[in-house]
Amino acid sequence: MGYYIGVDLGGTNVRVAKFDENYNLLQEFIEESHGSSGPRELVRDTIFSMLDRVENIENCKGIGVAIPGPVDVKRRVMSIANNLPGFENYPLASMIEEKYKLPVMLENDANVAGLAEALNGAGKGKDIVYYITHSTGIGGALIVNGKIISGQMGFAGEIGNIIVKDNGQEGRYLNPGAIEAESSGSALTRKAKIIYGDNADSKYLFEMARNNDPKAIALIDDMANDMGRLLATIGQIIDPDIFVIGGGVSNNSDYYWPQMIEAYHKYFNGIKYAEIKKAELKEPGVLGAALLVKGV
Amino acid sequence: MGYYIGVDLGGTNVRVAKFDENYNLLQEFIEESHGSSGPRELVRDTIFSMLDRVENIENCKGIGVAIPGPVDVKRRVMSIANNLPGFENYPLASMIEEKYKLPVMLENDANVAGLAEALNGAGKGKDIVYYITHSTGIGGALIVNGKIISGQMGFAGEIGNIIVKDNGQEGRYLNPGAIEAESSGSALTRKAKIIYGDNADSKYLFEMARNNDPKAIALIDDMANDMGRLLATIGQIIDPDIFVIGGGVSNNSDYYWPQMIEAYHKYFNGIKYAEIKKAELKEPGVLGAALLVKGV
Repeated sequence: MGYYIGVDLGGTNVRVAKFDENYNLLQEFIEESHGSSGPRELVRDTIFSMLDRVENIENCKGIGVAIPGPVDVKRRVMSIANNLPGFENYPLASMIEEKYKLPVMLENDANVAGLAEALNGAGKGKDIVYYITHSTGIGGALIVNGKIISGQMGFAGEIGNIIVKDNGQEGRYLNPGAIEAESSGSALTRKAKIIYGDNADSKYLFEMARNNDPKAIALIDDMANDMGRLLATIGQIIDPDIFVIGGGVSNNSDYYWPQMIEAYHKYFNGIKYAEIKKAELKEPGVLGAALLVKGV
Repeated sequence: MGYYIGVDLGGTNVRVAKFDENYNLLQEFIEESHGSSGPRELVRDTIFSMLDRVENIENCKGIGVAIPGPVDVKRRVMSIANNLPGFENYPLASMIEEKYKLPVMLENDANVAGLAEALNGAGKGKDIVYYITHSTGIGGALIVNGKIISGQMGFAGEIGNIIVKDNGQEGRYLNPGAIEAESSGSALTRKAKIIYGDNADSKYLFEMARNNDPKAIALIDDMANDMGRLLATIGQIIDPDIFVIGGGVSNNSDYYWPQMIEAYHKYFNGIKYAEIKKAELKEPGVLGAALLVKGV
């Protein structure tokens, strides 16, 4: 029996968990990440002290670490670190490896979430899984036969920048009309505030749409159309067996998925549409991180 | 030393060639495909009679077959066969396997061309190769660590249907504003005829642009922008090490690639752009077909 450790290093919390090879959670710790105090303190005071509490860590097969941003998986460093100041090119993996004498792998958080969903969630048993997190931002992950395709510098899956509207909304670090600028949770919140005032957000927009407010319905339908177009674009490039969609916005799947699926079918040229399912795992990050070192 | 056979079944010609494991061509035959006479005749009178001429075929490791259309690689049949009437779901692979008692694999022609370029052409030595054929139509292929990612039904790489202009040109089996309707060789020919009359084609359009005709320059610049946007879209999904671009239109790379690359850089959000190279192989199809059975 092998044991695997996952570390999910988020902007807000750090999770550390130990799993057996059947994906059973054996131990879990959660602490605040205090991202602003710098990488050296975060590694020493938080990550190391959490890993020190893992039982029999010396008998584990390895440690996988999930990070919020693109990762150069060959060099095992973050390519850019907008959400974790100081971590760009920081030798986190080497430091953990040196201290615990275990293999360490680093990956982007959306990619490991996709890996967890592919191996033990909604995508289980499928060869080609495309995972999308539809949340504040929009990210993706491509998993082929249980392996993440991360890209030369970890930018595979940075799908938020794909254009869905010519001359559309401007966004920071984004193409005008990029799907993240048009249809992410934060884009919906921005649009909701314009109509309903500063207290409105994406949740309120869905409430108003469910209450048959025509303005809200039009905005949600437009978002659903953008998402369907994105699925079709990914489909023409990958033709996955399944799309697994998670993230806060997707909690309203009962409301907007019918329109999204209709748009996907309209824009996709093929003979069989990919299955589309909701993500199933509550905390895919820390399990997916552990799976990085499972060598499946 | 192993020997491998490739069959490239095109709408016009059939090629059969024998290679050694160092990609050396040992024997090659070319005949017309007479596509219209039906699959049974084509297999018996052309493919079998060509394979019968391969020396020591019984000592070869296998036969790979390239086909012009999407292939269901698990079932080893064409998913649709617009260019080879009668071949949809036709058991070509089983028939060849039964007669020659060798492993037979079937794949789409753009995918095998990409495989050949990845293993022995412009993409040699790269982990993630994205191949694009920019010809009458526009197709693509994703090769990761020497393996084609074909998709659940062989529609991975059917990138001609990706939208690059909202409310753009209509096309048969294509989204309005799809890149194949806007910027393929046949789209350029269509646009050339509108300006210069029925004898004009895409080649003539390039000639006029090189002669500084502003209308031709504007059309080519627009095509280059579409292609750059396509590269960026693929980049956000795959982040390949290299794009390898072949096909007739790319023979004008000296003229339009600078604009295309500028657009790719503008639309791509990453920290390192993929290399972009011209395809190197003259006949990638038949070599790529043979490589299907090489098991590299």
